Amino acid sequence: MKELNICIAGLGNVGSSLIESIEKNNDYINRKSSNQINIIGISAKSKKKKRNIEISKYNWFDNPVDMTLLENCDVIVELIGNEKGISYELIESALKNNKHVVTGNKALIANHGNYLFNLAEYNSLALSFEAAVAGGIPIIKTIKNNISFNKIKKISGILNGTTNYILTKMEEDNLSFEDVLQIAKDKGFTSDHEADLDIEGFDAAHKLTILSTLCFGSDLNFKQNYIDGISNIKIEDISFAKNIGYKIKLVSESSIINGEIYNFTSPKLVSFNNPLANVGDALNAINLETDHLDNLFLEGQGAGGKPTTSSVLSDLYEISQNNNFNNLGFKTKDLIKYKKFNLENIINSYYLRIMTDDRSGVLSSITNHFTDSGISVEKILQLPDNSNLNAPIPIIITTHKIQREILNNVINKIEKLSFVKEKITVLPIHDN
Amino acid sequence: MKELNICIAGLGNVGSSLIESIEKNNDYINRKSSNQINIIGISAKSKKKKRNIEISKYNWFDNPVDMTLLENCDVIVELIGNEKGISYELIESALKNNKHVVTGNKALIANHGNYLFNLAEYNSLALSFEAAVAGGIPIIKTIKNNISFNKIKKISGILNGTTNYILTKMEEDNLSFEDVLQIAKDKGFTSDHEADLDIEGFDAAHKLTILSTLCFGSDLNFKQNYIDGISNIKIEDISFAKNIGYKIKLVSESSIINGEIYNFTSPKLVSFNNPLANVGDALNAINLETDHLDNLFLEGQGAGGKPTTSSVLSDLYEISQNNNFNNLGFKTKDLIKYKKFNLENIINSYYLRIMTDDRSGVLSSITNHFTDSGISVEKILQLPDNSNLNAPIPIIITTHKIQREILNNVINKIEKLSFVKEKITVLPIHDN
Repeated sequence: MKELNICIAGLGNVGSSLIESIEKNNDYINRKSSNQINIIGISAKSKKKKRNIEISKYNWFDNPVDMTLLENCDVIVELIGNEKGISYELIESALKNNKHVVTGNKALIANHGNYLFNLAEYNSLALSFEAAVAGGIPIIKTIKNNISFNKIKKISGILNGTTNYILTKMEEDNLSFEDVLQIAKDKGFTSDHEADLDIEGFDAAHKLTILSTLCFGSDLNFKQNYIDGISNIKIEDISFAKNIGYKIKLVSESSIINGEIYNFTSPKLVSFNNPLANVGDALNAINLETDHLDNLFLEGQGAGGKPTTSSVLSDLYEISQNNNFNNLGFKTKDLIKYKKFNLENIINSYYLRIMTDDRSGVLSSITNHFTDSGISVEKILQLPDNSNLNAPIPIIITTHKIQREILNNVINKIEKLSFVKEKITVLPIHDN
Repeated sequence: MKELNICIAGLGNVGSSLIESIEKNNDYINRKSSNQINIIGISAKSKKKKRNIEISKYNWFDNPVDMTLLENCDVIVELIGNEKGISYELIESALKNNKHVVTGNKALIANHGNYLFNLAEYNSLALSFEAAVAGGIPIIKTIKNNISFNKIKKISGILNGTTNYILTKMEEDNLSFEDVLQIAKDKGFTSDHEADLDIEGFDAAHKLTILSTLCFGSDLNFKQNYIDGISNIKIEDISFAKNIGYKIKLVSESSIINGEIYNFTSPKLVSFNNPLANVGDALNAINLETDHLDNLFLEGQGAGGKPTTSSVLSDLYEISQNNNFNNLGFKTKDLIKYKKFNLENIINSYYLRIMTDDRSGVLSSITNHFTDSGISVEKILQLPDNSNLNAPIPIIITTHKIQREILNNVINKIEKLSFVKEKITVLPIHDN
């Protein structure tokens, strides 16, 4: 039997759950890996905070960085989660002191990962981050180890649980965005600070940045993301979309188009036939398309103490079994600085909601604008609202595939028409 | 750069696709793994058969076992697929001659795996079999490496593509089992011999045997399976099930109940809400429930040259990166000979179709039998068929959870009633 000595920094949901799991499953861990995991140091902001676990039996460190100096420490588990600051300092110090690192810190990796992975590789160390993306879904190892010789064409998925919960709840209970957000906050699903990162799509984009590096060998560059959140999604759009066979989901997708990187997070209409449409509650899901696989689809819990602990444990398992760490699936020197794809050039189909006066000639005027620009309309729905005769009525249009730039030009023109009463809502329709 | 020298035995769909992929992706393979894969020997039944690949550039062996004697061979890839015979001889010889083995041979592993894994472990060799279960879905590595420290509670899934294709087609096109089977054969989806293994559930049970070893550390024992195929499924049952919110799927599931192993492959009613219900065509899917994960769901292609090649390649990747092979996720000496769970003791809910005369008193007589036995009925549907006044009419019943033995007793009684015209159709309802 070998020993794997670990130190844990950060004792929130995940850190506490990790300690609990190691205590509970140690015999099993031993049977599966011929290893014994010893927790030789712990650290958190407050020593006194009430926790489910008994911390007094572990060595406490006020400053987590001190743990990286422990001679017999093999692995630092970073679960503090700051985008930089102490989290960065801890990881850097660990790698410089020849300790492996396991972290769930997506923002840090997406923004400052390149140097750290370089450092880890230079010292032949693991810098493992299964917990950083999609909680309990082992998507990192799936891409890195399980389909490693596949050339990936596209990755797309639902990477943020809170926004998926909000969209699901809006649809199921016919509630507004604001109402559901309040419920999510009341239930402790999300805090104000987290909610902003979630709702505006930043959290999903952090994760997408990491996935796109694993899939395409791009260097880690958060700035390459196009990001659109869900705060403008109206319950009406969810209903109209449902009427024509779609759900609205916050979809993140990454692919290489003409040698440029396309990282896009946005609410999209997803067809009922696509498994992503059926991903409810706070679940996450990811679909991969490769040169060998039409589709490989994974769905599971995207957050929470136990699911994320499963991912941390799988990193510890990998470290216990290996001595050759291919952290990103590519050598860092081979990472490519892709040019960012110009969003105006993307070709997609779209859903539009145009709020207009309820009078004759409106529909033909709008469709003429589309025809003149060579945009082929797939479906038009005019839905008179009898409740208020003077209120604008919605016209719902879905288009066939068109270059975004051409669509934007038409939209600019239509928005200037006198009978158009609001900014037009434009949502891309998910392809696959 | 290192070299990985492989020999390939069997040049059907998968073998040919493997050679093609290695030729095509060799630069990429090198970039991902710092390895060069060299094919230093090939073998198949017929040298002359027409193939998509040019075999003349490779060293041909009439007898694949001779390849295991090549000094510089690192890995034997067995894609012949016999349950024993030459496949077994080849793998045994490879392991005895210090070669790693990659195989897609589920029947061989399920029936004769224990000795071979023992031999591999003794010689510190890989005996890898990602391709043996669920084609392009990397379920083996998911269980073995990605959730290795999870205690698994239950695994369930759709493990056979042909039967899923048949059931999907029956439902979508309202065709009989026999009609769809003929279409599948005409399309070359399945041969007569394969069809039997598929339809009667044996192929799925082979795969389940392997999964249950990975999940629960049971020794490989095909005899522990309860197996029921789909040849008795009537289009009527598919329609009735749909009426009440279910699809009929061939589900394989494994769990440990009271210390005994429960390996069960059978057509079941799966609720529309369960992702398994939406697995169409010839796709495969697997759901895992663990002490850390409520659900981890994977869906993808279950067969075919390219998807299965993806799995073979992932085994080669693992061999190229590791020198510590935990083939089954447990040491072979730790494998457990579980007792087989007695099916009569299983507690489940059920769907029944009872064909009766169309006369008064029938329904109350049947429900009385259920009530007397303490079986709680969830739903009853009586569907008079006006097309033929003298024909028996179906009564559809779904029960709440009940021990199978008690249900069987009632069924025996009801089948003896004069107005019951056929053997009662009994299908379990899938739990999750």
